[in-house]
Amino acid sequence: MSRTVDTLLVVGLGLIGGSLVAALRGTGFARRITAYNRNRASLDYALGAGLIDAAPRSLEEAVAEAGLIVVGVPTLTVGAVFETIRVHGRPDVLITDVASVKGSVVQAAAQVFGQVPPRLVPGHPIAGAEKSGVEAARAGLFERHRVILTPLADTDAEALTTVEAMWRLTGAEVVRMEVAAHDRILALTSHLPHVLAFALVDSLARQSASDDIFRFAAGGFRDFTRIASSDAVMWRDIALANRGALLDAIDGFTVTLDALRAAVAAGDGATLEQVFVRARSARERYLRWLEQGIQK
Amino acid sequence: MSRTVDTLLVVGLGLIGGSLVAALRGTGFARRITAYNRNRASLDYALGAGLIDAAPRSLEEAVAEAGLIVVGVPTLTVGAVFETIRVHGRPDVLITDVASVKGSVVQAAAQVFGQVPPRLVPGHPIAGAEKSGVEAARAGLFERHRVILTPLADTDAEALTTVEAMWRLTGAEVVRMEVAAHDRILALTSHLPHVLAFALVDSLARQSASDDIFRFAAGGFRDFTRIASSDAVMWRDIALANRGALLDAIDGFTVTLDALRAAVAAGDGATLEQVFVRARSARERYLRWLEQGIQK
Repeated sequence: MSRTVDTLLVVGLGLIGGSLVAALRGTGFARRITAYNRNRASLDYALGAGLIDAAPRSLEEAVAEAGLIVVGVPTLTVGAVFETIRVHGRPDVLITDVASVKGSVVQAAAQVFGQVPPRLVPGHPIAGAEKSGVEAARAGLFERHRVILTPLADTDAEALTTVEAMWRLTGAEVVRMEVAAHDRILALTSHLPHVLAFALVDSLARQSASDDIFRFAAGGFRDFTRIASSDAVMWRDIALANRGALLDAIDGFTVTLDALRAAVAAGDGATLEQVFVRARSARERYLRWLEQGIQK
Repeated sequence: MSRTVDTLLVVGLGLIGGSLVAALRGTGFARRITAYNRNRASLDYALGAGLIDAAPRSLEEAVAEAGLIVVGVPTLTVGAVFETIRVHGRPDVLITDVASVKGSVVQAAAQVFGQVPPRLVPGHPIAGAEKSGVEAARAGLFERHRVILTPLADTDAEALTTVEAMWRLTGAEVVRMEVAAHDRILALTSHLPHVLAFALVDSLARQSASDDIFRFAAGGFRDFTRIASSDAVMWRDIALANRGALLDAIDGFTVTLDALRAAVAAGDGATLEQVFVRARSARERYLRWLEQGIQK
């Protein structure tokens, strides 16, 4: 029952990886915490802030000594890190990741390793913000938030237990879900809203006199478009990695939007009111979930 | 140069009207402040809170004694209030309103009065929230926010000066704009985002297992859908009143969304990244406007 590890390595030290190691410091979960990042400035920051014990000069070196590797790179780069793990990793290494799409991670693992390694536990902490980078990391980021793990039928039970234990130490609630269910739900609640926010802001920015338009936007606009300040490369990767579920989500949304457009065009106030009332009450239900404790 | 009034009447005492009288208390702008509201509970609250001096029993009575009337009822009800003002109002009465659409107000005034009265100054404070009702009113609501006035060519200069003076006393910045420009800009920055938020939440609520979907929605979803908690009747009216500009806004958005959908379907990461980068930088520009002092 190994619920602690010798060397924990985070590959890709941004908001999520940095907050994870910040939360794990002093818990005794890992005897030693290391990190690798293409941009050395993040590593220097993390070393200076006492978040990590060491920052090996190469990914190969970092991978070779790690007992648990948390892959925190952009979704479509996960496969390249898997390849380095395949070549340089210990035979007993545990692997998990934090990518927002799980189907593409499982697919990349199957391609690189020939089959999905039983000691790989795909994961996704439902946390984060429009901020990014290790400088925004904080130990409390995952408290009262959910972490979804999507183990497969032959995932190693002890690997799963260890990864669950790690996330529980951060204050998160860990839930298990099937890969496809995860990707469908996240497409609807996260990937689609991001696409809509990016589309809205871009649509306004390309209007004539767009500065005047933004100048008169009210506070509701700031909240609505907050997620359009998210990292472009990260979201490009997510959109591509979760293509099927995202297209379904866009199409479902478009059906609703078309119906609302038709009601506006027809002056059909009854339909508009009905949809608005239904949406408002669904959101109230959602807020009650939030209040019941998770994902503040 | 009458920059004060004898009796100020607010018709429709909700968040906006209540916050306006709260901000004007003690400024000397009005010798006396009254209000009329279909729901008497709001008036009792306002009397109890010392926001207003009197609450006449009927709209006719309230209108008959008022020197300045602020019409704060839902957009499509403005015309009915104008009709009472036409029959019972003083010949020297000044009128302004706070509706989110200005074209429909001007049109209603022309229908009721035969022509738009020179002493009517259409207005729209860019403030508010998903909250509503006089209980949410606060004197500081308009501070550092913009109030848009849309006078016509023959609007009375003194009426305009008085209404401007009133809003400046609340801490707002007053700007003038043409009716059509106002309605186009608000369609893009406010009415369209509300329709999108309502459509998204409704689209998710109608999915199978929608409770699971909302249960796993992250914090970004809460911000993105905040405006879907807005009052359904108020937004039904706005959507109908600003039909033309809203349809244009929906169509412009749909073009952008369709292009993003096509890029996702084609696996065209370059286009996705380009749009996301452009949107993000447009939003940063918008945030700089906000920081420069207005609309915190």
